[in-house]
Amino acid sequence: MPTNRDEQAPKPDLRLINQALAMICGKWRLYIILLLGEQTLRYTQLSELLPGISEKVLAGELKALVALGVMKRKAYAEMPPRVEYKLSKKGRLALPVLNQLQEVGQLFN
Amino acid sequence: MPTNRDEQAPKPDLRLINQALAMICGKWRLYIILLLGEQTLRYTQLSELLPGISEKVLAGELKALVALGVMKRKAYAEMPPRVEYKLSKKGRLALPVLNQLQEVGQLFN
Repeated sequence: MPTNRDEQAPKPDLRLINQALAMICGKWRLYIILLLGEQTLRYTQLSELLPGISEKVLAGELKALVALGVMKRKAYAEMPPRVEYKLSKKGRLALPVLNQLQEVGQLFN
Repeated sequence: MPTNRDEQAPKPDLRLINQALAMICGKWRLYIILLLGEQTLRYTQLSELLPGISEKVLAGELKALVALGVMKRKAYAEMPPRVEYKLSKKGRLALPVLNQLQEVGQLFN
């Protein structure tokens, strides 16, 4: 028997949902976040950990993740140039939920 | 200072991650899952709750969610035809994590 739309249950918020999806959808984005996790990694380290991704795509994803406020980028005035990435405070707050998405994937494996 | 890739931390699994993303990415998919939640709703009820989505897109998303094993579809041999949707057992298991994604969106609001 169909239930009437449960009046008590708050309706999901499409704008907030799409805001979360902007951070994680796409072939590499969530993977990069989870790979970085609680660490600070150089661009070169990330690139080595992501052999299947082109330089252009990696640079684009990192740029998007910084723009979304998920990651922080720090460049050092050195030669050769050194650039480091880490999750922002908000990114680290979101990490436990994002980590559980892999378990959701396991459920449907 | 960059940390070395934390050897203890298991590397994220790209295949499992993409499996989870297939269920939730796209403009409407996660919203439909959260809207349905623990309920059983008729196609017509879903359609009324989703004024911004075309019949064709809604039918396509529901078909995909059933194919992915997230939802169950039940058709009744009646006139007019009656079709009901509810989350599968796996879908309901994933619901707590998926509900938290909206809070992740709130973080970045």
